[in-house]
Amino acid sequence: MHSSEETENIKMFFRYQHSFLISKIIFTASELGVFDLLRESGEPLSSATVAERLKTSLTGMQTLLGACVGLKVLKVERKEDLYGNTEFADLFLAKSSPKSQYYTMKFFSEYGYLSLQYLPEAVSTNFNSRSKEGVESFFRYMDEAWSLHGKEVVSAFDLSGFQLICDLGGNSGGLAKELISKYPNCTVKILDLLEVVEISKKYNAFSEDSQITFHEGGGVLVVEPTIDQEISGSFPAHMYSIIMLLHSEGKVRTASEYCILFNTAGFTNIQFKKGNIFDVILVKK
Amino acid sequence: MHSSEETENIKMFFRYQHSFLISKIIFTASELGVFDLLRESGEPLSSATVAERLKTSLTGMQTLLGACVGLKVLKVERKEDLYGNTEFADLFLAKSSPKSQYYTMKFFSEYGYLSLQYLPEAVSTNFNSRSKEGVESFFRYMDEAWSLHGKEVVSAFDLSGFQLICDLGGNSGGLAKELISKYPNCTVKILDLLEVVEISKKYNAFSEDSQITFHEGGGVLVVEPTIDQEISGSFPAHMYSIIMLLHSEGKVRTASEYCILFNTAGFTNIQFKKGNIFDVILVKK
Repeated sequence: MHSSEETENIKMFFRYQHSFLISKIIFTASELGVFDLLRESGEPLSSATVAERLKTSLTGMQTLLGACVGLKVLKVERKEDLYGNTEFADLFLAKSSPKSQYYTMKFFSEYGYLSLQYLPEAVSTNFNSRSKEGVESFFRYMDEAWSLHGKEVVSAFDLSGFQLICDLGGNSGGLAKELISKYPNCTVKILDLLEVVEISKKYNAFSEDSQITFHEGGGVLVVEPTIDQEISGSFPAHMYSIIMLLHSEGKVRTASEYCILFNTAGFTNIQFKKGNIFDVILVKK
Repeated sequence: MHSSEETENIKMFFRYQHSFLISKIIFTASELGVFDLLRESGEPLSSATVAERLKTSLTGMQTLLGACVGLKVLKVERKEDLYGNTEFADLFLAKSSPKSQYYTMKFFSEYGYLSLQYLPEAVSTNFNSRSKEGVESFFRYMDEAWSLHGKEVVSAFDLSGFQLICDLGGNSGGLAKELISKYPNCTVKILDLLEVVEISKKYNAFSEDSQITFHEGGGVLVVEPTIDQEISGSFPAHMYSIIMLLHSEGKVRTASEYCILFNTAGFTNIQFKKGNIFDVILVKK
């Protein structure tokens, strides 16, 4: 009936059309406590038990659990109607896990999801939906993100030669904590917008001074998802570019665009390390 | 740094966390007219030209175009900063294409996307967000969907032996049109909820009577995405189950659950055909 190319196109459209459901299904299961209940129970539970414990309708919960199985975040023993977390869900989706991304999902579900409704305005007029509300929620998200990506990022290069590290745009200090944990002898100064620093100090009870100091032999470490030369790869960079358009300033760049920036500023020693989500560039004069 | 399993988990979380952006990026490019402009120009255009013609900011448009390239719906000649539609975008995303899914994207962007914000309530209390608003918008979506999937569905089995076909829940008549086109000698009766039929008649100017008639030797054709026996496959069925939870009644079933339903009702001749999105079951007594 359909050529295989047409079939692939139809499937691709279907997937793009419904992608927004994927995030919301997982965010909703997280919000309702599905992953926590299944992690804490220590054994698979029936849909009826999950519905009862979480005080939801049975049909609704069965639909949600089925969709979560379809997305491979839950597993099911179908005959016994018993559901359990996958290892992935135990690790990242349950609130009680040390690697939990609970507040990340909450932040994206409450703020990120709705802000995307303004994407046409953001593209048309550079409308920016950044608000003071949700900054603490954003901090928790950033803390969780660095607990996930931080180790890879701070180990991309040997930074043990740097005693003072200034984190520009370091908001809540999530990356700073990872730096101190990997390089216990370094001092990290977090620099950010005044409004961010104010909230960050309350949030963290760090004591910071916001003076920028220059030191001989310094270097710059860029931690950003970069787009590839052809723009066509690098899913993380494209997602960040849209989020930046809506919520902050700045833009994503290719590695060679960074090189030009740094060359112009007199930096000649440039090292690039491709990461899973965040790429890392270390530049020295 | 990270084991390969941990890396895969991190990438999986990142993808789930950002899936909602994928739909919105494509919906937004459609809404702003990007795919139409590029289809109609007949040649690749620079980001500055696209921004100027569509009256958007340059930075915003560059970000959006880049993200669309990343999602493989646009292609770019990077050195010349020239953007063009992929074949997929020309076919499905441009409004002027005969296979356009423009109203589908509009419907999902305006209604579907926001309704998902109520998914926790729908799971908890069977809250249903169906509204009369948007019914015409829904009809256009269904018409486009059947223009995409209809040919495959009506050809899954030879229905030329049936002179009268009743389409239960046939709403705007999109599938009926495909049936008549494939089987010119058949008559199709569309049956649906009163409120749907009322709007459908206005929308289509069909003349229908809503009487159900029984005929010897009839059959039932089920056109639904089904879930596989283990619940873990069938992405389309899981997406539909969530949409049904929010907007309509009914639920998705496995092929064997349908068999039980039909056996109980006295149907013994059951044929199943797996489709790309919609599966088709033909049952006779």
